[in-house]
Amino acid sequence: MSKNIAILTSGGDCAGLNAVMSAIVKRADALGWGVIGIENGTAGLLEEPYAVRTLSPADFDGFVMRRGGTILGTTNSKNPFKYPMPDGSVKDRSDELIAAIKDLGIDAVIGIGGDGSFAILNKLATQGNLPFIGVPKTIDNDLSLTDLSVGFDTAVEVATEALDRLQPTAASHDRVMILEVMGRDAGHIALAAGIAGGVDVILIPEIPYTIENIAKKIQQVKDSGRNFALVIVSEAVKTAAGEKVEVADGRYGGVGAYLAPKIAEATGFETRVTVLGHVQRGGSPTWNDRLLAQAFGVRAVDLVNEGKFGRMVAWQNRAVVDVAIEDAIKECRIVRTHGTQVHTARSVGISFGD
Amino acid sequence: MSKNIAILTSGGDCAGLNAVMSAIVKRADALGWGVIGIENGTAGLLEEPYAVRTLSPADFDGFVMRRGGTILGTTNSKNPFKYPMPDGSVKDRSDELIAAIKDLGIDAVIGIGGDGSFAILNKLATQGNLPFIGVPKTIDNDLSLTDLSVGFDTAVEVATEALDRLQPTAASHDRVMILEVMGRDAGHIALAAGIAGGVDVILIPEIPYTIENIAKKIQQVKDSGRNFALVIVSEAVKTAAGEKVEVADGRYGGVGAYLAPKIAEATGFETRVTVLGHVQRGGSPTWNDRLLAQAFGVRAVDLVNEGKFGRMVAWQNRAVVDVAIEDAIKECRIVRTHGTQVHTARSVGISFGD
Amino acid sequence: MSKNIAILTSGGDCAGLNAVMSAIVKRADALGWGVIGIENGTAGLLEEPYAVRTLSPADFDGFVMRRGGTILGTTNSKNPFKYPMPDGSVKDRSDELIAAIKDLGIDAVIGIGGDGSFAILNKLATQGNLPFIGVPKTIDNDLSLTDLSVGFDTAVEVATEALDRLQPTAASHDRVMILEVMGRDAGHIALAAGIAGGVDVILIPEIPYTIENIAKKIQQVKDSGRNFALVIVSEAVKTAAGEKVEVADGRYGGVGAYLAPKIAEATGFETRVTVLGHVQRGGSPTWNDRLLAQAFGVRAVDLVNEGKFGRMVAWQNRAVVDVAIEDAIKECRIVRTHGTQVHTARSVGISFGD
Amino acid sequence: MSKNIAILTSGGDCAGLNAVMSAIVKRADALGWGVIGIENGTAGLLEEPYAVRTLSPADFDGFVMRRGGTILGTTNSKNPFKYPMPDGSVKDRSDELIAAIKDLGIDAVIGIGGDGSFAILNKLATQGNLPFIGVPKTIDNDLSLTDLSVGFDTAVEVATEALDRLQPTAASHDRVMILEVMGRDAGHIALAAGIAGGVDVILIPEIPYTIENIAKKIQQVKDSGRNFALVIVSEAVKTAAGEKVEVADGRYGGVGAYLAPKIAEATGFETRVTVLGHVQRGGSPTWNDRLLAQAFGVRAVDLVNEGKFGRMVAWQNRAVVDVAIEDAIKECRIVRTHGTQVHTARSVGISFGD
Repeated sequence: MSKNIAILTSGGDCAGLNAVMSAIVKRADALGWGVIGIENGTAGLLEEPYAVRTLSPADFDGFVMRRGGTILGTTNSKNPFKYPMPDGSVKDRSDELIAAIKDLGIDAVIGIGGDGSFAILNKLATQGNLPFIGVPKTIDNDLSLTDLSVGFDTAVEVATEALDRLQPTAASHDRVMILEVMGRDAGHIALAAGIAGGVDVILIPEIPYTIENIAKKIQQVKDSGRNFALVIVSEAVKTAAGEKVEVADGRYGGVGAYLAPKIAEATGFETRVTVLGHVQRGGSPTWNDRLLAQAFGVRAVDLVNEGKFGRMVAWQNRAVVDVAIEDAIKECRIVRTHGTQVHTARSVGISFGD
Repeated sequence: MSKNIAILTSGGDCAGLNAVMSAIVKRADALGWGVIGIENGTAGLLEEPYAVRTLSPADFDGFVMRRGGTILGTTNSKNPFKYPMPDGSVKDRSDELIAAIKDLGIDAVIGIGGDGSFAILNKLATQGNLPFIGVPKTIDNDLSLTDLSVGFDTAVEVATEALDRLQPTAASHDRVMILEVMGRDAGHIALAAGIAGGVDVILIPEIPYTIENIAKKIQQVKDSGRNFALVIVSEAVKTAAGEKVEVADGRYGGVGAYLAPKIAEATGFETRVTVLGHVQRGGSPTWNDRLLAQAFGVRAVDLVNEGKFGRMVAWQNRAVVDVAIEDAIKECRIVRTHGTQVHTARSVGISFGD
Repeated sequence: MSKNIAILTSGGDCAGLNAVMSAIVKRADALGWGVIGIENGTAGLLEEPYAVRTLSPADFDGFVMRRGGTILGTTNSKNPFKYPMPDGSVKDRSDELIAAIKDLGIDAVIGIGGDGSFAILNKLATQGNLPFIGVPKTIDNDLSLTDLSVGFDTAVEVATEALDRLQPTAASHDRVMILEVMGRDAGHIALAAGIAGGVDVILIPEIPYTIENIAKKIQQVKDSGRNFALVIVSEAVKTAAGEKVEVADGRYGGVGAYLAPKIAEATGFETRVTVLGHVQRGGSPTWNDRLLAQAFGVRAVDLVNEGKFGRMVAWQNRAVVDVAIEDAIKECRIVRTHGTQVHTARSVGISFGD
Repeated sequence: MSKNIAILTSGGDCAGLNAVMSAIVKRADALGWGVIGIENGTAGLLEEPYAVRTLSPADFDGFVMRRGGTILGTTNSKNPFKYPMPDGSVKDRSDELIAAIKDLGIDAVIGIGGDGSFAILNKLATQGNLPFIGVPKTIDNDLSLTDLSVGFDTAVEVATEALDRLQPTAASHDRVMILEVMGRDAGHIALAAGIAGGVDVILIPEIPYTIENIAKKIQQVKDSGRNFALVIVSEAVKTAAGEKVEVADGRYGGVGAYLAPKIAEATGFETRVTVLGHVQRGGSPTWNDRLLAQAFGVRAVDLVNEGKFGRMVAWQNRAVVDVAIEDAIKECRIVRTHGTQVHTARSVGISFGD
């Protein structure tokens, strides 16, 4: 029986969102179903008229599938339970949203998001008895119950490439180069890119550091005859005193700029900082992200077909599975401080500043 | 207690070999052990004097770790059991090889190779009672018992990038573009790159095809309003009649050139062929390959430390484990024709020509 | 006064065509002019109804400008003077084409093409007294009177990147790697990429070679202690006997496959071939190609504004100029065998096989 | 007659330095000459013993030639006329340096540097009657009398690639993305990358801007129906009041962070900043930089052969020439505000905030 699916992207964007949607639309089209896209997360349904559009396979030619970002737009500032009104007040518009979804005759909502978005969408689904399925995306890879979320692989590749470019110039000038990468609550990007990019020091929020220990490691590097070093730091890392970095405007990074003079002073090396920022989000997705995205998209439609709702598709043991969405958002997937990656890093001589 | 490890790379090269060795050498150095590298697979021990060299962390600065190929050299034509002698004859030199390893006072041999190399090395280890550990590498990803082998991720990325470049020119000229990729026994590269690269047809050895079915799919593409198509084909694919492609010199590929006129005739489209060849092997390793390589290298040294031999390190469920090497080479890991990837491909409208 | 411009892309596609059109449309829009795009070279005007469409800046968002190929489509097989009719005959449809342009009320035609296209378009312009301006594009860079044509820079970058990937695998296996690149009449791609990619032998149509001389160079490399070599060859290179390579189907390349066994026999090295094919045409344009393309597009509209027709925009001495189109197509810009590049190549030890 | 050449790299590093040296060494070797490399600019000659090493073609295998940075090391803080002594004082050590060069029996010094380095080296050469030749390198491309300096092409490609990644995420979130690039005195990187990367606003030191004008342009973009914008800014740009940006530590950038809140306030858009930093210097050189570098290196040795000293090799009109070094450093090559590039930028709708 023909169905109507609504899809939306929510929270911070990343590489691979269009590939998820491409797969959903192609799979649904093959089943004879219709798909509508809601613009700007759920916010498109809180406008008059609804900011929605019919999606067909022609909207996802190869060019769009290969592209970063989301053709639907997204937002991380329009929580329907605390919707920011033009007058500056905040309003619960969840009932309006539920009504809109029913109004449109939608049989299933597939939301592509991270833990924050899923918490909101799951609450909405429960409140409105909505048939909801989640597809996990986050460059931070901090969603539990899935080995991988869409966008992480590309972000790490971009960060690794930056380290590849920083090494020659570090070596030429006898400097310590500091690369500040994203990672709000978990250090997965810094950890993976740090190992792949051959750094000397990785700073992640899961492992407290001291400037002294960083300096000690860099001194060891110097003693071994190498006159430069690479440091990668997750933006979420706190100061040695355990506090978040205070900068004039936190959105523009800060921990790199905070560390640079301190490391310079403690080691005698010149230091330089690169703040990658959103280039980690917008790149063309790697093959892994494109494959993961499409496998997730197909599975999400399969779940609709099977009538299984309240589920998040997930990647476990190299296959797509599905898990209860409420389980998926219970906790943040942080770096295991005794796992394979940290052990690998330490074994090849990388310091965590601890 | 201090140990001496010998390492070698064997069989076709790929991205990430240097990263494996980098991790082995750094980990061993931290333990106070020595490492020697044997050149050109096992062949370095069948020369006078031995073609071996001491390896230290300084040999693996970041530049080498980031680089494709193997600084030790490799070969896939010098099987010690059937060694090609200068006079054209073939000789079993396995006893010489075993004697050389004992002569050098080596406590463990770590071989980085694929199934062919492991079969030889395992036979040697059994015959000579040698403490052997294997690290899996193959761009074909056809080793069983490990989800991933070193080199595969990079090969797929290179092939995907080629498809990204072929699409715009295919679209501009209303052509069918055929990309021939590596994959001697299994179609993993073609399958993964095909999904990621948004092709219309994937041809792999695991799924027999007919020209008629390929033409039918391309006609559907045309009927849908798109005037071009992308085809990816594994070099191992046979003709429709089930035979390997006969070309003047098989080393230079052939199945792409074999298919091109046939598809042109059957569809009316102009066709063009790209033969990627060894650019799939030599690129700078992706972050995944570098991380996998280093995790494997560290684990191999850990196994030596634990005195566990006859094992292959493996990647399962996002962690490094080890398996019996004789189990790992029992069978070739081919594409599961009803697995997640094939299902995903079919669900987004990709044909396998079947 | 408002004008109507028609634009078309003609001949083989390349990176940067969309960027040329983007600049034309944006510049014209700022002047209050209209632009129509003719599809598939001039062929779009020989259909009923005309295959034309209005182009506005919105058609050229950043994604399209960054993309290889041409959104208008192109062809190199529909010469209006010898138009291939459905019944297999050939017909002069030039008068129809001229009539169509006049019928559409077009004030200027800007054609983006190479020497072949310009010969046809210039003949048409003369015959029909049409206000024509040419923008040079060709990956071969063989148009005279302009230092650079759109598409060349990107093609060389792609070829250079392939060499970067071939070197490590060549070195690992002691092989000679042969990269076959495009270049129908001139060897500019092979020459530039060969120098940039650090090859040992460059074969271009402008300099006759012998297998003996190639083998001699490779022997020198071997004698110097390096056990591998890189060879780049332009598809246009002929056999040592001065004949074009005979292959079953010339479209699929051939000179690489022709040379490989000959070089193997003459040197004792294993050889492998990569045929890059159309990946040289379809990639995202480099910054140079995007800048050149937009500078050309702007200048073409400026020429319309100045009423200067029969001109080709050109790049000379780091500025955009314009030249008589009939002068531009008088001769093919081949490699100067005593110019800076050949001198540089020889000086760093590269052989041309001569 | 055999000669001894000394080479050094001086000032900020960039992509292509190794390729220059590779060509010098290969060319000199073919002439039977010796080459020594001086480490860390001229500073290697002010140590005991001299930090110098013999260079041979084997030091420049393909891997090194393809690599960013300089194997000799460089510095921009050890001016021999004002040498920083360990005790914090500053000393004129020019006579020592001249004596060292004579002591080593050097027939010619080839220095690879920018205007700052050349001013020092030329003064030294005059004072000591030294046979000096300069090879221009600077990512800023601000050396006069040469169209191109080594390193610029790669820096622009890296910046353009960052813009390619910023566009999709800007579009997904309705944001203004600000990319801060290098360029100490001239805006060439920002100008070229800005045009190639399709930005809306380019800020360079040569053209004063106001926040109001930037906001006006972004409002126009919004009015045209596009809900995001890209801004590229040269680090050298001053505040609207004409002052250099005051940040806690100027080395870590600043103008991006200065502009972001101001643009946000003036436009109502969210803004985000990326500070590329040294990733612009260290990447693998593009084919253009590698070709330019090798052509320069060869020409420098040719000049030694011809006995022409006091010259800088230069790129003019697509050929290598040489100019008097004192002329080359007379003035800084800034952006021509009425040249082809600025005209192109304005014509495609890019604002300079003026």
